[in-house]
Amino acid sequence: MANINNNYLNLKESYLFAKISEEKQKYIQNNKNKKLIDLSIGDVTLPLPPSAIEGIKKACQNLSKKDTFTGYPPSSGHNFLKDEIIKNDYLSRNISIDNSEIFIGDSSKSDICNMLDLFESNITVALQDPVYPVYVDSNIIKGNNIVYMTDIYNFLPPKKHIDIIYLCFPNNPTGKVISKELLKKYVDYALENNTLIFFDSAYEAFIQDKNTVHSIYEIENAKKVAIEFRSFSKTAGFTSIRLAYTIVPKDIVINNKVTLNSLFKRLKDTKYNGPSYLSEFAMYNVYKTNNFNELQENINYYLRNTKLLVNFFKSKNITTSSTVNSPYVWIKCKDNMNSWNFFYYMLDKFMILGTPGSGFGKSGEGHFRLTGFGTYEDTKEAIERMSKEL
Amino acid sequence: MANINNNYLNLKESYLFAKISEEKQKYIQNNKNKKLIDLSIGDVTLPLPPSAIEGIKKACQNLSKKDTFTGYPPSSGHNFLKDEIIKNDYLSRNISIDNSEIFIGDSSKSDICNMLDLFESNITVALQDPVYPVYVDSNIIKGNNIVYMTDIYNFLPPKKHIDIIYLCFPNNPTGKVISKELLKKYVDYALENNTLIFFDSAYEAFIQDKNTVHSIYEIENAKKVAIEFRSFSKTAGFTSIRLAYTIVPKDIVINNKVTLNSLFKRLKDTKYNGPSYLSEFAMYNVYKTNNFNELQENINYYLRNTKLLVNFFKSKNITTSSTVNSPYVWIKCKDNMNSWNFFYYMLDKFMILGTPGSGFGKSGEGHFRLTGFGTYEDTKEAIERMSKEL
Repeated sequence: MANINNNYLNLKESYLFAKISEEKQKYIQNNKNKKLIDLSIGDVTLPLPPSAIEGIKKACQNLSKKDTFTGYPPSSGHNFLKDEIIKNDYLSRNISIDNSEIFIGDSSKSDICNMLDLFESNITVALQDPVYPVYVDSNIIKGNNIVYMTDIYNFLPPKKHIDIIYLCFPNNPTGKVISKELLKKYVDYALENNTLIFFDSAYEAFIQDKNTVHSIYEIENAKKVAIEFRSFSKTAGFTSIRLAYTIVPKDIVINNKVTLNSLFKRLKDTKYNGPSYLSEFAMYNVYKTNNFNELQENINYYLRNTKLLVNFFKSKNITTSSTVNSPYVWIKCKDNMNSWNFFYYMLDKFMILGTPGSGFGKSGEGHFRLTGFGTYEDTKEAIERMSKEL
Repeated sequence: MANINNNYLNLKESYLFAKISEEKQKYIQNNKNKKLIDLSIGDVTLPLPPSAIEGIKKACQNLSKKDTFTGYPPSSGHNFLKDEIIKNDYLSRNISIDNSEIFIGDSSKSDICNMLDLFESNITVALQDPVYPVYVDSNIIKGNNIVYMTDIYNFLPPKKHIDIIYLCFPNNPTGKVISKELLKKYVDYALENNTLIFFDSAYEAFIQDKNTVHSIYEIENAKKVAIEFRSFSKTAGFTSIRLAYTIVPKDIVINNKVTLNSLFKRLKDTKYNGPSYLSEFAMYNVYKTNNFNELQENINYYLRNTKLLVNFFKSKNITTSSTVNSPYVWIKCKDNMNSWNFFYYMLDKFMILGTPGSGFGKSGEGHFRLTGFGTYEDTKEAIERMSKEL
């Protein structure tokens, strides 16, 4: 039978969040009378905003009538949504993006992974550490060389040539943002060294600080080197209905002969069929009716939880990120426990599910991630439980 | 910058249906007062069935309330839909499929392409000719060796070892089905030669003949060698809302050590986030309320168009498929024209858009594909236009 892509055997047996979900099920099975509080995964819990629901209903009506029915979307999504993205997410920040530079799809995760298909194997990528494990896994599958940037906030040019630098800001899992000055250093490095930047800004809607960017294109000349991944999962609470987009500027030329934009279009045309009309119309209606306050309300709810947790850990002198620009709280494990020991400690002692920091990379060892995505009540209860003994 | 995956440069410049869509736009631009009839692409045109619309509305209600809100789906979809698939699509044909063997996603196209990621490059695949161009393009991108089976209906064991055989029945573009006896030969060949079968049955709902299969698992032992791709695009008219599933039986073992099922799960967990809850619930509601007659009505509508076309071409002594088991009509071009010449001939003479057969492979040269997916009125008008001069 066809030989296996051996790179798959170099992966850990299960994907981090799949493993945590298994541990959760096991715990529930064995502790039926206990109330587990899940602050582990980065998934929203509040209902869809009313204007999104309204959009789905309108789309539904369109699909139920012959005159307004529509079939396959273009493989990069419909223009009605692209136009709103340009206007609301970019022109509002004085960034000009062309229609053909936007690829709307079902998920940033898949675009981030699939983009690698355009390059040969064995390229060298630089990843933050700790970071979202999908970057690591997708590069292992591809057989690429991974260099870790452990001191990302102290810009040190890498010693070898880097083909792609991945930057995730606000960062998952640490929640930190990057200053404009520092990001400019990365962009300048990329321009000088013919390096590509994958900029993942899934959490930009949570940003509170002023001296950072929502889009990497706020930095001069970034369109020549950077691809930006944006998701509606956290911005609009769309995790269940799947919608995201990727910006691939036309200025990026590979091997001096072909634009990355045309290659990605070929990939999308060949392998995918675009996002669901229902999800597109949901977001279109949010944009069109200017109901951004509804999105912001939900985000503020999660940020309140996050702040509660941060303030609690500070009061306990547990090292944590000092600012809140994301739904994540990144703490140092108690008594120098390792991440997985602390995971079980939190589970057994407080019935709280979190994510072991080591799942995000070597530098995450000895750390732990909690999220503000729980309910306000659960978050308060979690703090109460911990306050007694942590 | 990262070197390009050179295999991309071996592809034709644009994906077949993207090119046809461009030609269509060009024609409309230059012929604003003419009425073009598009019978080119395999896309549905009838509204979603009422029970699917009802399902979306229920899902919408669930997502609008905190108690019933749900976030990320499992990466292989929700069990509520898997259970209905097992019951309605398999148990009804005495096939037993386990929950964990079903991977629900947004598209068969993407699963067919992504599955190749699990194997090393340079494997040898056997493709029907003519056939759905996605099989060809995805294997070119992966750098695989392609062997064409031009005489698919006359079973001839390939001379070299084949790692994967792709079978698409009812076939796109010819519309032909495969007899149970012949399919058994392919399955037996695969069992003997350690070959994998990718069975694409996107059009199974259109089957009228008795001596063929809806699922390859109707053939004994096929679960040891075959993966089956099923789509709701044509079955339920879901092209706009994206939903499909893939069966990866647990019996398939790669390199004597790892199941293809566990590998595909790892791939899905790592790179994807599952299908949209709205689309899942749409189909769930169709199954749950037993509204299959609604689906069948739409399919019958398209089949009526297809039959009209087939009968017309027969009356003109133009070679075409003799049975109707799919929405496709595959004809020989007039006067031995080549496919693209005939494409422009049909466009200029009759204002009818079809698909050049050569786009489906070498053996498709000199042929042309039309579909029954137009409206009844358009199909009749197309026949009227052609009847004068074809």
